[in-house]
Amino acid sequence: MGRTSNARQRLLDAACELMLTRSFGAVGVADICARADVRKGSFYYFFESKQALTLAAIDAHWQRQREGWLAILQTAHPALDRLRRLIEETAATQRVAQEALGMVSGCALANLALELSTQDHVVQARLQEIFAEQIALVEGTLQNAAAAGTLAAASATHAVARAIVAQMEGMVLFAKLGNDPDVLDDLWRQTLRLLQVAEAVSA
Amino acid sequence: MGRTSNARQRLLDAACELMLTRSFGAVGVADICARADVRKGSFYYFFESKQALTLAAIDAHWQRQREGWLAILQTAHPALDRLRRLIEETAATQRVAQEALGMVSGCALANLALELSTQDHVVQARLQEIFAEQIALVEGTLQNAAAAGTLAAASATHAVARAIVAQMEGMVLFAKLGNDPDVLDDLWRQTLRLLQVAEAVSA
Repeated sequence: MGRTSNARQRLLDAACELMLTRSFGAVGVADICARADVRKGSFYYFFESKQALTLAAIDAHWQRQREGWLAILQTAHPALDRLRRLIEETAATQRVAQEALGMVSGCALANLALELSTQDHVVQARLQEIFAEQIALVEGTLQNAAAAGTLAAASATHAVARAIVAQMEGMVLFAKLGNDPDVLDDLWRQTLRLLQVAEAVSA
Repeated sequence: MGRTSNARQRLLDAACELMLTRSFGAVGVADICARADVRKGSFYYFFESKQALTLAAIDAHWQRQREGWLAILQTAHPALDRLRRLIEETAATQRVAQEALGMVSGCALANLALELSTQDHVVQARLQEIFAEQIALVEGTLQNAAAAGTLAAASATHAVARAIVAQMEGMVLFAKLGNDPDVLDDLWRQTLRLLQVAEAVSA
């Protein structure tokens, strides 16, 4: 594919990075092109608008993240172990971002959800679908645990799965605000509280 | 005071509204002045920079919100009842915002925390202080409950208080993303899980 597909990928990578580090609403096509080292004239060959790139970058980000989630959740390990690994992976991801970008950059999807939901209803709708998918993946894992008898049925609900993802996003906000990924080390303990599972049982 | 103080207040109000509805990083002094109906030349009479207005608007927002929190938390009601009212107030606030602005606008402080933490370390530091104060207010209430024997000491910790505020912010994110304040009706039930308190006990 060579240079052409390379330019498209660089535009996607630049958009993903700018979602993590800047007010994305304040970022223009020229900024994205400069960061990607792509001429502005070429931008519209690949994307018809900044919104089209935003949607493609969101999808690329979630596709990567989703592969990571599935690699953890679709294994033969006990369900609560899989969930613990998913939570630990959240902390690890923020640590890697801090090393790569010099700061905890948070969750690109949550950043955009809070920044753009009131302004861009196409982006908002896509982010809604992705968060619904995240919650469904957690809910499926909780149901696996309930089926295996390691979780009460009352804890294997959509509402509890949503609370777990909300807790992750709220704690990632604190990690970003304090530029401190260590606060995420507490996430599993709080998740066990949401699940009404004693810590010793799950260890 | 008349027109002068009125213009300052209108600038603060406009900034607060734009924090809820727009990418605040993309909002310029001219936008704020237009929304406030204040001439741009007058802006710098009141604030030396957009950052100075941002900090003043954050403080004004939190001062108002803090008064609401204290009016609930500094009463003679049982501690867990006070906490429940605080949580219910979060849902009510988002409903009022939806009616006033036509959309769930989320929490101005969380919106700014995710959008600006990586870009403006003065704003980041001020938001850190405010969230620390929120967590301390919740922690104090948990300690009241523990002292009254309605909460286990292991649940009356800084970590649990932080988890409760994180849960609020994560669920407000979902309310904003879905333009649906009803998801917040589940917040108290999830808070009870974090506190390891049975629902019937607290009712």
